[in-house]
Amino acid sequence: MKADIKKYQDLINARLETALPIQPGYFKTLYEAMNYSLRAGGKRIRPILMQLAYEAVGGSEDISAYLCAIEMVHTYSLIHDDLPSMDNDDLRRGKPTNHMVFGEAAAILAGDGLLNQAFESMLEDAMKHGGIERVHAAYILARAGGIKGMIAGQILDIESENKTISLQALETIHLHKTGALIKAALKMGSVLGRGTPNEVHALETYGEHIGKVFQIIDDVLDEVSTDQELGKRIKSDQKNKKNTYLSFYTVDECYQIAKELTDKALSALVMLKGDTALLRGIAVDLINRRS
Amino acid sequence: MKADIKKYQDLINARLETALPIQPGYFKTLYEAMNYSLRAGGKRIRPILMQLAYEAVGGSEDISAYLCAIEMVHTYSLIHDDLPSMDNDDLRRGKPTNHMVFGEAAAILAGDGLLNQAFESMLEDAMKHGGIERVHAAYILARAGGIKGMIAGQILDIESENKTISLQALETIHLHKTGALIKAALKMGSVLGRGTPNEVHALETYGEHIGKVFQIIDDVLDEVSTDQELGKRIKSDQKNKKNTYLSFYTVDECYQIAKELTDKALSALVMLKGDTALLRGIAVDLINRRS
Repeated sequence: MKADIKKYQDLINARLETALPIQPGYFKTLYEAMNYSLRAGGKRIRPILMQLAYEAVGGSEDISAYLCAIEMVHTYSLIHDDLPSMDNDDLRRGKPTNHMVFGEAAAILAGDGLLNQAFESMLEDAMKHGGIERVHAAYILARAGGIKGMIAGQILDIESENKTISLQALETIHLHKTGALIKAALKMGSVLGRGTPNEVHALETYGEHIGKVFQIIDDVLDEVSTDQELGKRIKSDQKNKKNTYLSFYTVDECYQIAKELTDKALSALVMLKGDTALLRGIAVDLINRRS
Repeated sequence: MKADIKKYQDLINARLETALPIQPGYFKTLYEAMNYSLRAGGKRIRPILMQLAYEAVGGSEDISAYLCAIEMVHTYSLIHDDLPSMDNDDLRRGKPTNHMVFGEAAAILAGDGLLNQAFESMLEDAMKHGGIERVHAAYILARAGGIKGMIAGQILDIESENKTISLQALETIHLHKTGALIKAALKMGSVLGRGTPNEVHALETYGEHIGKVFQIIDDVLDEVSTDQELGKRIKSDQKNKKNTYLSFYTVDECYQIAKELTDKALSALVMLKGDTALLRGIAVDLINRRS
């Protein structure tokens, strides 16, 4: 199981290695700053989910452009998120954050560059292949990452610092900030693989539930893990006076809720005819993860 | 002539008014920050050029999504450009810059939001209409605005502050930072209008030359204009110790070079069968502008 996931992770990492060729001369700093964060490791959970959803509905072509694009969008959001005017974090994936290494201006531009490059790569691929699925997949990412998705979650998150918010407001933040992109990964994969509407819906439902699990466990780990285990500063939520699930539930209750959501995610997979063993494995891993 | 351009400007402004509906409730700040800069006026030169190129090759459909998208990309670049860690400007289009009003975090997110929304709108439109031209147009914008285009120009510009650079390096900055997007406007319009390769090439050539004129006159105005005339701080280049054409040429020489480039731009239009009166007018206006 772990070994199988690792194979997918290696595939994604290999694709990311060449997604941004190091440019000689003039634009070196920009490429270095972008690659620094893009190649910093990370679980690659979004592209792995996309590839698995793609295979689960029978897809067998190369969808690297979309796998890399979603990781670029995720990475740009982390770079901007870590900036001094946002969460002001100095450690990410076990390394100094982008602006600590390249300065604030270059970090902002590296983020802009990754966001733009995500669309550039997908559009180039869509032009080459023709067909509506690839344009549709790019649109799904735009929507999930955009002002009604991830970016909305981010502004809500920042506006809610130092305030007491309702559980409903907290879930709205998570649904947008983390959930939208995870759900999009599943939808993109199933659309690219030309899944039936029922298959697309099942994979989206799975994505919706594990997206919530992901965030609940994130909140728990920020509280109970160590810097070293997590690769980023623990208790950063507390530092930034953020609301988390732990403002509403105990650690045990969080795990109980996460378990119920995981069960729902697994149920959604039942109607799929393709191989879903790894998707099941990931759902179980998410709730048991330590980092 | 002026009245005709004004008509196009009004058309673009009307489209931009509804490009981002004000969202009630949760995401209000984000929309307000995005709209603040998007509706702040400006010459709308890029979408006007796109629409004129489109009409010059016989296009007659609604290309609003692309007109708005290029203005969103331009506007996001201004918001990020003005940030304290970049050019640290407090005045833009006669109003306080985005971060002065909404704070740095919201300004960064408003920029991210506009960049993402540009692609979201174009992809939604491309899905609705089908056909390769619209996907191609979105790709042209991605490329021109991206890490081999505008963003590359921006990092070079920042890296060159406080340094003496060659005229060639200065032209590389301008070619990327300003030129790429202006040229893209012309190319997008002619591709969307299904122009012949010769027509596309002619309009691109025109765009290349007026892009240079635009930047030369920008440098001159930053030196000889007033804050009020320009709607932004004059002598900001000097403040940021930036290299400009005035590091290499006198004001008179700048106008001489701009005149030669304008002549070349006008010559490129000769082969077009469609109406190019306004494109000619814009080229002449650019060299005579006071703001």
